[in-house]
Amino acid sequence: MDISHLSSLSHTDALALRYGPEAIPAAGPWNDHIALLLSHRSIRGYRTDALPEGTLETLIAAAQSAATSSNLQTWSVIAVTDPARKAAIAKLSNNQKHIEQCPLFLAWLADISRNQRLGAEEGATLEVMPYLETFLVAAIDAALAAQNAVTAAESLGLSTVYIGAMRNNPLQIAELLGLPSGTMGVFGLCVGYALPGVANEVKPRLPQSVVLHHETYGTPAESAARAAYDAQMAAFSQRNDMTQDTWSKRVLGRMGKLTSLSGRDKLVAALHTLGFDLR
Amino acid sequence: MDISHLSSLSHTDALALRYGPEAIPAAGPWNDHIALLLSHRSIRGYRTDALPEGTLETLIAAAQSAATSSNLQTWSVIAVTDPARKAAIAKLSNNQKHIEQCPLFLAWLADISRNQRLGAEEGATLEVMPYLETFLVAAIDAALAAQNAVTAAESLGLSTVYIGAMRNNPLQIAELLGLPSGTMGVFGLCVGYALPGVANEVKPRLPQSVVLHHETYGTPAESAARAAYDAQMAAFSQRNDMTQDTWSKRVLGRMGKLTSLSGRDKLVAALHTLGFDLR
Repeated sequence: MDISHLSSLSHTDALALRYGPEAIPAAGPWNDHIALLLSHRSIRGYRTDALPEGTLETLIAAAQSAATSSNLQTWSVIAVTDPARKAAIAKLSNNQKHIEQCPLFLAWLADISRNQRLGAEEGATLEVMPYLETFLVAAIDAALAAQNAVTAAESLGLSTVYIGAMRNNPLQIAELLGLPSGTMGVFGLCVGYALPGVANEVKPRLPQSVVLHHETYGTPAESAARAAYDAQMAAFSQRNDMTQDTWSKRVLGRMGKLTSLSGRDKLVAALHTLGFDLR
Repeated sequence: MDISHLSSLSHTDALALRYGPEAIPAAGPWNDHIALLLSHRSIRGYRTDALPEGTLETLIAAAQSAATSSNLQTWSVIAVTDPARKAAIAKLSNNQKHIEQCPLFLAWLADISRNQRLGAEEGATLEVMPYLETFLVAAIDAALAAQNAVTAAESLGLSTVYIGAMRNNPLQIAELLGLPSGTMGVFGLCVGYALPGVANEVKPRLPQSVVLHHETYGTPAESAARAAYDAQMAAFSQRNDMTQDTWSKRVLGRMGKLTSLSGRDKLVAALHTLGFDLR
């Protein structure tokens, strides 16, 4: 399947891929930037080719251009290219081979330690540090930044995949990356060139009717929409040689049993150890 | 100040605006998509003009195209255009007048309720629901989605600003938006056309030397970089008629006293009430 020109798809074709031909939302404005965003696929197989010089710095400039709450900038990122370190991260993250394959692995951190050091140097106690709100802001701001890096990477013909499994063993990840107290690896991101043949179709999402609400929350269309989406995901899975079938089964499989959290049910204790009190 | 053509700035000029002329990172690849990301500014004053038809649906299609952990899609968004409701949200969110002004206010929700309804309809207990990990995934996925919406909006000549203050009174926000248990408004987003004259320069960020780490975390350049950034932010503030001066003073002012959280120190209790156990 030739996927090299997805971002030049027509407006209607791009929406049909994202929602299926039966659930295309109202036509609105359109441009190449939006086509790029719509063309996103997560990629789980990479060539080992290094990235062009300066690519990392460009991605981080895009990341830092995202909004950050009160300009506090409570996030950091660690660029990992060393094969041994990538292998160690892969081992701690559910053995995902693409972490070893990709030429650049970015570990995104919630980081209140920099601002804590500032407070210490200025002789000030920063009272907000032990609160859940402060961790949440750091995690959200890391996500806003990372998503800009993803958009920049994809605009350069690179592919990416987020690694939530970097939270499976947060203490060991912290040791491996030399993290100070007040930092936590919230997710990873593989960046590189997709191996030929690994790119699936654009994955369909739930129809806008159940995700987008007007003025207040409502669920009138939800059950019927879920049934239609289940059928669509079953067909998508089959076309793309994937084992999952309906969305409902996926949700039940991933959320039904605590074991599917792969240790992330101990996240609160890990965050306490890493210097986040979460009050 | 004419800011209408920022996204057509040269590579070097865009980096100089974002980091200051003394801290420009290594030159890397560049294109119009990246120029757009680098040109971001948060805008706090809007014309009341409605958005072109279909704009909302385009923004949400971009948002839903962002990655979502295991395709669980545990977020929703509420589009608010009703003036009375926007005024009520503004009142609950530190009286920010731009919430009333903007033609479209998006309330982004961490939403595990949809998947809970799925479990209930299928007669299954979803064991992961009461865990912090599940809330964190929902909040991060909402952030990835929202950032795509921001990029799409800015590509259309629209402006945005995130509203973290939507967390000041999460229970009242939930009541106002008719939220079911298992949903929480994580942040808001104003979308609209900037009022003439309200756009500041692109805000400088910390140099890459202190935010981007290689292989492991390190702070050798941090103190000197902070001093340089303080000077830069002082000059930026003065040029843009802002009251804050250095970054260090900003951080001490926003993180020093608990009162600056505007009630968000009670977030844990509020989340418990809203159906997130955070185990």
